Amino acid sequence: MRKVSYIDDFEHWKSEFDFSIRIDVRFSEVDMFGHMNNVATFDYFEEARIKYMAHIGLFKDLSGDELPVVGDLQCDYHKQVYFGETLYIYVKAQSVGNSSLDLHYLGINEQGDVCITGRGVIINMNKKTGKSAPLSTEHREAILTAVK
Amino acid sequence: MRKVSYIDDFEHWKSEFDFSIRIDVRFSEVDMFGHMNNVATFDYFEEARIKYMAHIGLFKDLSGDELPVVGDLQCDYHKQVYFGETLYIYVKAQSVGNSSLDLHYLGINEQGDVCITGRGVIINMNKKTGKSAPLSTEHREAILTAVK
Amino acid sequence: MRKVSYIDDFEHWKSEFDFSIRIDVRFSEVDMFGHMNNVATFDYFEEARIKYMAHIGLFKDLSGDELPVVGDLQCDYHKQVYFGETLYIYVKAQSVGNSSLDLHYLGINEQGDVCITGRGVIINMNKKTGKSAPLSTEHREAILTAVK
Amino acid sequence: MRKVSYIDDFEHWKSEFDFSIRIDVRFSEVDMFGHMNNVATFDYFEEARIKYMAHIGLFKDLSGDELPVVGDLQCDYHKQVYFGETLYIYVKAQSVGNSSLDLHYLGINEQGDVCITGRGVIINMNKKTGKSAPLSTEHREAILTAVK
Repeated sequence: MRKVSYIDDFEHWKSEFDFSIRIDVRFSEVDMFGHMNNVATFDYFEEARIKYMAHIGLFKDLSGDELPVVGDLQCDYHKQVYFGETLYIYVKAQSVGNSSLDLHYLGINEQGDVCITGRGVIINMNKKTGKSAPLSTEHREAILTAVK
Repeated sequence: MRKVSYIDDFEHWKSEFDFSIRIDVRFSEVDMFGHMNNVATFDYFEEARIKYMAHIGLFKDLSGDELPVVGDLQCDYHKQVYFGETLYIYVKAQSVGNSSLDLHYLGINEQGDVCITGRGVIINMNKKTGKSAPLSTEHREAILTAVK
Repeated sequence: MRKVSYIDDFEHWKSEFDFSIRIDVRFSEVDMFGHMNNVATFDYFEEARIKYMAHIGLFKDLSGDELPVVGDLQCDYHKQVYFGETLYIYVKAQSVGNSSLDLHYLGINEQGDVCITGRGVIINMNKKTGKSAPLSTEHREAILTAVK
Repeated sequence: MRKVSYIDDFEHWKSEFDFSIRIDVRFSEVDMFGHMNNVATFDYFEEARIKYMAHIGLFKDLSGDELPVVGDLQCDYHKQVYFGETLYIYVKAQSVGNSSLDLHYLGINEQGDVCITGRGVIINMNKKTGKSAPLSTEHREAILTAVK
């Protein structure tokens, strides 16, 4: 696997994941060369992120004053994926800041090959001000429990 | 604007762009909070990239042995974008390697605000081997002419 | 052109359109056989519909009690469309009911070939009850002015 | 449920389905009013169609001379669907023609409510001529076995 800036020791990094979702690559997500479109992976990350945050108890109530927004996103493509393949998208909380957390992603196929890796910051935004706001104690604790 | 790892001097970086496409944010690209979905930006980068590569004379013939594939992608979200807004997505060749080139992206709204920035490597892939292949002299020269 | 149930006299039907939007078929909207994906056309209809309704003065304020929702949609594919082609999506109000209106669609390429036709009902829904509600006098008049 | 043109007796029509796929409505498929976007349903139909055709033995080999293309599509929206809901998309072969077949669709939520219904013709196209071609005896028999 190609070296990427956000992974120091791949085996250690990989061992910290314990939550994943299953994705069947759709026909509409494949391009004219038969490859999974690079844009689709960010849809997969989003699904994995939403289910992971629910799983660890984050942002359960979006009707309040705060909303998780995406600060940045990146994805590295290690192996081509084709129509009809199944991917398992793993996600974990890598670290936590005052008003944000860093999520990391790993996508492997049914043979266990690493197809994609990624990461991105989620910012806790105040809906009224449109600016970042400190994470609540409850959220911070939920994240710290999840971070290995 | 928040500091991002791939931009040293923002004003200088910005001054090197001279190609852009216009994007009207679609209703289907807006999420339940009224914000442009973060996945849509990678669709915009793709459109900008395809038109830019055609503009500088790269990969004009995809029926041959070689194909440009995406090696990695990243995007930083600096300002929320809403349904009905227009974005101008700028793209430039930042650097060239033996078998790849690095493209950078800038998305600004009609008021000139920086909404998104990004980058990603394009790899020249041989269709038969599925592996990277050195850029042809023609492609390398086209890229070097474009890089500021 | 193949006969479709919602068009009696094609030339007459076509002559009633006078509003259109331009769509450049995106790379991500093309499938592994090089054809425009059939799902993309409904995205095009949506863009055309939103801009047409704004054009004739419908549903300008979505913060009120009422919301336009899609009751049904249909599309007939008459000619294959490929990546890089430009489509002009025409839309018109065909008829109006008590709480709904019927919109018709025509998509032609730059050579003037009919590529797609379609139609669908838009229902005026009350946000609180989740049920259809009579169109206001203002909306009804705007539609009747638009219907040929 | 609202009456639709392609369903005579709803209970009878519904009883003929015995193949379905499960769809979890994605965050990116929900619009700014919290509703499942109407375009997403055609993606669901496509997934259901591809898996159903494989299930009954149609178009197993797309490397040959023939390709299934979509002739028309329609969808009726009976009940709003929200983010996080699960839909079961049923599909059946309703009838067969010389070079085409008519597929019908039913989407129900976990409570068994009818949320969407639809239909559309699939045409057997010859890749070289770009025109419709008679279904092979093998394909015709597979469809006739599936039609109730």
